Amino acid sequence: MSGTQTPDIRTQALSQPVDVAEYLFTRLRQFGIKSIHGVPGDYNLVALDYIPKCDLEWVGSVNELNAAYAADGYARVAGAAALVTTFGVGELSALNGIAGAYAEQVPVVHIVGCPSTIAQRNGMLLHHTLGNGDFNVFAEMSKNISCELTKLMDPSHIADQIDHTLRQCWLHSRPVYIMLPTDMTQKKVEGARLKTPIRLEDHKNEPESEDYVVDVVLKYLHAAKDPVILVDACAIRHRVLDEVHELIEKTQLPVFVTPMGKSAVNEEHPTYGGVYAGVSSHQDVIKRVEGSDLILTIGALKSDFNTSGFSYRTSQLRTIDFHSNYIAVRYSHYPGVGMRGVLRKVIDQVDLKKLHAQPIEHKQAILEKPDASGTITQSWFWPRISSFLKENDVIVTETGTSNFGIWDTVYPAGVTALSQVLWGSIGWSVGATQGAALAVKDLGVNRRTILFVGDGSFQLTAQELSTMIRSGLNPIIFLICNDGFTIERFIHGMDASYNDISAWKFKDLVDVFGGTSERTAKYQVKTTSELDKLLADKDFIAARRLQFVELYMPREDAPKALVTTAEASAKNNAKQE
Amino acid sequence: MSGTQTPDIRTQALSQPVDVAEYLFTRLRQFGIKSIHGVPGDYNLVALDYIPKCDLEWVGSVNELNAAYAADGYARVAGAAALVTTFGVGELSALNGIAGAYAEQVPVVHIVGCPSTIAQRNGMLLHHTLGNGDFNVFAEMSKNISCELTKLMDPSHIADQIDHTLRQCWLHSRPVYIMLPTDMTQKKVEGARLKTPIRLEDHKNEPESEDYVVDVVLKYLHAAKDPVILVDACAIRHRVLDEVHELIEKTQLPVFVTPMGKSAVNEEHPTYGGVYAGVSSHQDVIKRVEGSDLILTIGALKSDFNTSGFSYRTSQLRTIDFHSNYIAVRYSHYPGVGMRGVLRKVIDQVDLKKLHAQPIEHKQAILEKPDASGTITQSWFWPRISSFLKENDVIVTETGTSNFGIWDTVYPAGVTALSQVLWGSIGWSVGATQGAALAVKDLGVNRRTILFVGDGSFQLTAQELSTMIRSGLNPIIFLICNDGFTIERFIHGMDASYNDISAWKFKDLVDVFGGTSERTAKYQVKTTSELDKLLADKDFIAARRLQFVELYMPREDAPKALVTTAEASAKNNAKQE
Repeated sequence: MSGTQTPDIRTQALSQPVDVAEYLFTRLRQFGIKSIHGVPGDYNLVALDYIPKCDLEWVGSVNELNAAYAADGYARVAGAAALVTTFGVGELSALNGIAGAYAEQVPVVHIVGCPSTIAQRNGMLLHHTLGNGDFNVFAEMSKNISCELTKLMDPSHIADQIDHTLRQCWLHSRPVYIMLPTDMTQKKVEGARLKTPIRLEDHKNEPESEDYVVDVVLKYLHAAKDPVILVDACAIRHRVLDEVHELIEKTQLPVFVTPMGKSAVNEEHPTYGGVYAGVSSHQDVIKRVEGSDLILTIGALKSDFNTSGFSYRTSQLRTIDFHSNYIAVRYSHYPGVGMRGVLRKVIDQVDLKKLHAQPIEHKQAILEKPDASGTITQSWFWPRISSFLKENDVIVTETGTSNFGIWDTVYPAGVTALSQVLWGSIGWSVGATQGAALAVKDLGVNRRTILFVGDGSFQLTAQELSTMIRSGLNPIIFLICNDGFTIERFIHGMDASYNDISAWKFKDLVDVFGGTSERTAKYQVKTTSELDKLLADKDFIAARRLQFVELYMPREDAPKALVTTAEASAKNNAKQE
Repeated sequence: MSGTQTPDIRTQALSQPVDVAEYLFTRLRQFGIKSIHGVPGDYNLVALDYIPKCDLEWVGSVNELNAAYAADGYARVAGAAALVTTFGVGELSALNGIAGAYAEQVPVVHIVGCPSTIAQRNGMLLHHTLGNGDFNVFAEMSKNISCELTKLMDPSHIADQIDHTLRQCWLHSRPVYIMLPTDMTQKKVEGARLKTPIRLEDHKNEPESEDYVVDVVLKYLHAAKDPVILVDACAIRHRVLDEVHELIEKTQLPVFVTPMGKSAVNEEHPTYGGVYAGVSSHQDVIKRVEGSDLILTIGALKSDFNTSGFSYRTSQLRTIDFHSNYIAVRYSHYPGVGMRGVLRKVIDQVDLKKLHAQPIEHKQAILEKPDASGTITQSWFWPRISSFLKENDVIVTETGTSNFGIWDTVYPAGVTALSQVLWGSIGWSVGATQGAALAVKDLGVNRRTILFVGDGSFQLTAQELSTMIRSGLNPIIFLICNDGFTIERFIHGMDASYNDISAWKFKDLVDVFGGTSERTAKYQVKTTSELDKLLADKDFIAARRLQFVELYMPREDAPKALVTTAEASAKNNAKQE
C-alpha cells in the first residue's frame, strides 16, 4: 500500500516515513492490544488492510454495539482495547457501548473511518451522512463520552495527535475518539517516533502536599480502634491494586469490597469480610463496616446500584477517601493529591505497633440447603457457584439478577470480575465476554471466562455468541432462563407484559451460529442435583470448548439485594415534590 | 394509576385533568399510530402502563436499535411511529436508527423515560448516568438528529410542548425527541384539549409568489419539445404523491424515478420509463432523461448512492426542481415557495394543446435466460422477481446488493418501497420489515410485506425475526446468502477476510425464535428452477405465515449498478490533493 502516493516535501523530510494507519496500529500494538474489534465499512476498509501488517488480529463482530461491548470487556482484562467503526451508521451504533466505557472508566480507543478531508470540505452529499453537509455532527455526539477527541486532518500533526490521544486514554482510563478520513490513511508520518513508547506514567503528586496528607492519614489510622478498608471500582480502574494488596498484607486490616469493587482483593485472604453496599449487605458486614471508627475507602464510586440506593449508614467524620485525583480526610479535601503516591507512603510508614487490626470472621460462602423440589433458587445458586470457581477465573455478570446474586459468591484468589453496575446496559455482558475471553487468549494465559446472564438481557446481543464460536473461544455461559426482565419486574410491573420476552430455544443458537460438537457443548439444567452433577464434571470444569448452559430458575425469584435495590429505585422514580 | 397524587392548585383548575402519559399516548393514537415500539427500562415502566389504556399496543423489540429501525419502517407505511426507550443506555442504542430517520426524513417520535426532575436537579449518581451528574448530555446527543427536542419538566407547559413537538415531527417529516421524567408521567394536564386534533396542515405558499412561479414553470413547460418528469425521495416524504400522480395522468409525460423515488409512481403506467441514476442506469433511460430539453425533478435528493456517484449528465439550464420549501427554475431560486401548491396549480393550468408529451417505450422487466448451471445470478434474479410481486406489496430492500438489484425489478401498481439509500445502515431492513408488516396489520389492509436482505446485513439485527414471530406477522424474507459483505468487497477488499462473515444456519433461527410449522415456513433455494417453483407455489404466494427463504447466490456477483457505484465510492475515498 505504501508507495501509492507521490512523496511530497513533508514526506521527503521524514527520516522513516510510515503510513498513518501503520503508525496508529503500531501504537495500539505497543499499548498491549493484540486484537482490534469492529465492523467493516467503506470508510475504514483501507485502514483495515494494515491490521495484519502490524501484527494485530481483526475481530469482525456481528454489529457495532456488540463490538463496543467486546472492546470494553477486552480492555478490562488486557488493559486497553480498540474499536474501528465507519462514519455515521457504524459509530452511532457503538455509542451506548462507548458511553458505558466512559461511565465505568474503561480505556477504549474508538477509531472512526470517515469521508476524505476533500469530501468534508466540499460538503458532499454522501451516504452515511444526514444529507446536510455536516461532517462534524457525529464527532460532536461522541464528545461528552470521550476524554479526548481528535480529527486527523493534517499529516504534519497526526503523529502528535495519536500519541497525545492514546496517552489521555490510558491516564484517564476512559474512551478516546479518533476520526480517520480516508485520504489520511496512507499519508506519511515520522516512523522513527515509534521506537520511543508513549509515556504512560501517572501524574506524580507534589511531594510536600503528599507528605502532608500521608501524615494526616497516619495520624487518624494510628488513633483508630477498629479501622477497616473498603475497596471500590476506581481502585481497579486507576490501577492501584498492587498498593491495595500490599496495604492489606502489611496491616492485616479487615477489608470489604463494594459490588463494583468485587475481585479487587483476594477473597481468600483471612481478613476479607465480604461485600458492603449499605442496607442490602449481610448483617455481619453492616455491623463491621458501619460500626468501624475509621473506614479507608479506596476508589469509591457511590452510585445507587453500588450502595443499595444510597443506603450507607457511615459518617464522613469516620472516613478517609482515597481517589485518583484527591484525598478526603473527614471533611478536609486535598485536591490534586492522587491515591497511588499516598498509599505507597502509607504502606511504607504505617507503624504496626500503633495499629489496631481487629479480628474478623473471614467471609465464606454460606451454602443453603437445596429446595426439596430441586428448584434452583437464586439464594441457593450464587453461594453454590463459589466452589466451582477456580483461581484466576474471569467472571462476567450481567445487570439484573446476576449482578446482585454474585455478591453471595466468594471468589478464589486472582479472579477478575467484570460487571457494569453504574452504566447497567443490558446485553453488555455477552459482548464483554467475547472481549474478555479473547484477551485471555491473546495474553496466552490459562484462565476460564465465565458468564452469568439472564434470558432477557441475552436476547439483545445474542449473536455475539457467533463471534465467540468463530474466534475459537471457550467461555462457559450460564444463561439464566427465568422468563423475562426480572430486575424490571421488581422495580415496576411484576406481571406486566412489557417485562415478558419471547421464548427462545436458546441453546440451539450454538448450532445455528456454527458451533460443532467438537468445539462447543450445550447443557440444560433444571434442578439442583443436575447442576451439582454438571459442576462436578471434570470435562465441564476443564472448559476446553465453548460451553452453553441453559439454567432454569423461577420467574419471580430474585436475589435479596436486587429486591431491596429495586424498591429504592422505584421509590426514587416515583418521588413527588 | 390516576388519583395517586394529591391534586394541587393547577390540577384543580383543569376542566378535564388527564395524566401526562395518557395525554401523550392519546395524541400518538390520534396521529394514526396503533403500536408503540421500544424496550422497557426502569425509567419508562410506569409510562408503559398507559399504553393499553390508550388503545395502543406495545411492541417490545429485542433491542433498541432494532426497535428504532422498526419504528422507521412503521412510519414509512403508517405515516408516523413512536419509540419508547430508557435514559442513557436505551436511547443511545437507538441513535443510529433515529439518525437514519432524520437523514431519510421519516417522522418518528422518540420518547425517553428519564430520571425524575428531582433526581436531575440534585445531580444524583444514578445507574444509566455517566456518573457526573449531567442529565442533559444524552439529549444533547440527539439534538442534531431531531427536528425538535423537548423536555417535559413542568406540567403547566407539557400539553403545549407535546402538541408543538408532534406538529413539528409531521411537518418536517423527521424525528423528534421527548424527555419524560418519571415524576412527570402522572402529573395532570388539560385533557379537554384532546378533543381538538393537532393542526397538521402544511405551510401555504404566499399566493402572489406562488402564481409567479407557476407562470414561469408553465412557460418553460409549454415551450419544451420533450419534457420528462423525474420523481425522487422527497416527493414521498413530503407527501405530494397525489399531486405527482395527477400530473402524470393529466400530462401523460414520460416519468422516471430515482432509486430513492422507486414506488412513488405506478410502474405499470404506460408513460413510466424506468430508474434514472446517472451512469448506472439503462442506456435507453439515460438517453431519454439526459436527452430531454426539460426535466421536472420532484423532491430530488442527489446523494452519491442515489446518483451512481454524482454521475448525472443533465444541465440545470434544462431543469426545474420542485422542493418542499423552494422551487428552482434553471438557476432562478424561489425560496419559501413549496411544491405542493405549485404542483396543484400546474396541474390545473397546464395547457395540454401546448404540451409536447413524447411517446416512450414503457419499461418492463427484461428477463434474462437462466444460467445453464441453474445458478441464481443477480442479473437474472431481480427482473425475475417482478412477476412474483402483487399490487400493493410492501417491499423492503437492504443496503447492498438488494438496493441496487431492485432497480431492475418492475413494481405493480400500489407498491410501497422501503429502502435506506442515503443513510445506508446495514441491518436496518430487518427491523424496518417488522415495523412495516406491523403497520400493514394495524391498518387492517391485505398487503404482503417482502424483504430482500443479504446475509452480512441480516446478522446485525437477526433477532428482530423473533419479534415478527411473536407479533404474528407474515412477511416473506428473502435472505441472500452470498458469504459476506458484497458491497464492501466491490468498494475495497474483494478477498479480504474482514469482508467475510460467520456461516450461520440461517433458516434454523425461525425455530430457535419460537416459530411453529403452522405460523412459519422455511425454504432453501439454490437454483433458478427451484426458485421458479417456489414463486409459482400458491401457498407461498398467499403469504399466510412468516416465510423465510435462504436464497443462494455467488459470492462475487453483484448488480451492475452496485459495481459502478462502488467504483465511484472507492475513487472518491482514495482521492488525494
